[in-house]
Amino acid sequence: MRQFVVVGHDVPTDSEGISLADLPGAGRLDLLCRCVATGVFLSYGIRDDVAVHLVCADELTVTFDAASLRHLHPDERNVAARIRDALAARADAIGHMPADVSPGVKLRRMGLSATLDRVAADGTLIHLHEEGAPLVDADPPEDPVFVLSDHNDFTESEASLLADAADRRVSVGPNRLHADHAVSVVHNWLDTDGYASY
Amino acid sequence: MRQFVVVGHDVPTDSEGISLADLPGAGRLDLLCRCVATGVFLSYGIRDDVAVHLVCADELTVTFDAASLRHLHPDERNVAARIRDALAARADAIGHMPADVSPGVKLRRMGLSATLDRVAADGTLIHLHEEGAPLVDADPPEDPVFVLSDHNDFTESEASLLADAADRRVSVGPNRLHADHAVSVVHNWLDTDGYASY
Repeated sequence: MRQFVVVGHDVPTDSEGISLADLPGAGRLDLLCRCVATGVFLSYGIRDDVAVHLVCADELTVTFDAASLRHLHPDERNVAARIRDALAARADAIGHMPADVSPGVKLRRMGLSATLDRVAADGTLIHLHEEGAPLVDADPPEDPVFVLSDHNDFTESEASLLADAADRRVSVGPNRLHADHAVSVVHNWLDTDGYASY
Repeated sequence: MRQFVVVGHDVPTDSEGISLADLPGAGRLDLLCRCVATGVFLSYGIRDDVAVHLVCADELTVTFDAASLRHLHPDERNVAARIRDALAARADAIGHMPADVSPGVKLRRMGLSATLDRVAADGTLIHLHEEGAPLVDADPPEDPVFVLSDHNDFTESEASLLADAADRRVSVGPNRLHADHAVSVVHNWLDTDGYASY
């Protein structure tokens, strides 16, 4: 399985803080929505075995599990409405038990640390970082879990957590990319592994 | 220079046909906006030498020239507002002379054929196509001009035009991707040319 953990530092954790007419104003929710869509969608299809976890303000995590998603569309507004629904269900998430928001969408009361503990147990944790090994030189692992930040850098405590928890650091290239563009590049890295020799 | 020609078959050519609250309903303008943003933006920056040309209903072409863009943001709604402004300026585009819409944005009365004639004169025209040569095996040309379609396949006459005009056919990988995701992959292909040996 491929997983993406995207850290949204400034996303409101209250659904009322989200206006669908101003997604950038909701902690750059536009960018996070594009990360979700880029993570789960193919053209006219959905990827089989992908999960995207949005960590919102280190307090709540919304998970999109591609295999069970229904009626999601790739435009920002549609994805944002689903995230807003998830945040509105926060009262139903008790302890670390998830709230089932809609098919393929769950909300958990977990920040980055608990989310990494939960999702990385089954995979190889990869910190996407400009000083990592160039992706073009690296071999993809089984079950990668990529960790990315929104428009902000990781905080010092997040960076320290990742330094301890990450199995590898990989760089997508010489330019700093938006997180959603990095997700496209990483998917293509995995999609084309071995493709050249077909 | 890198250029992208994106064919939007169903985009309204009248600005009044575009509601910013329903971009998918405006001929999947959401997808085209993501193509523009993916084409021109880096994280906290803009690419120096990129143009994205949106061909709208084979009648009008909106060009975003990254080097001179001002105040554009990467969210769909912001880009869509700029496209709507461009279409509203159609009366100012006379013959093949462009209307200057805002810094870095021009509108021309050109369909696909005239746009390809105009932009490919200075570059290598590359048709992104699932049956093309795998990109991972190919060497990037100087001044590539990539041609992509929206959520629809190219029509028969467009495909025939491309078969004549394109210098190369290249495939981004074994999966069919959304056009904006393909733009990310292509940028990364060019960005990392030679990167592995750094």
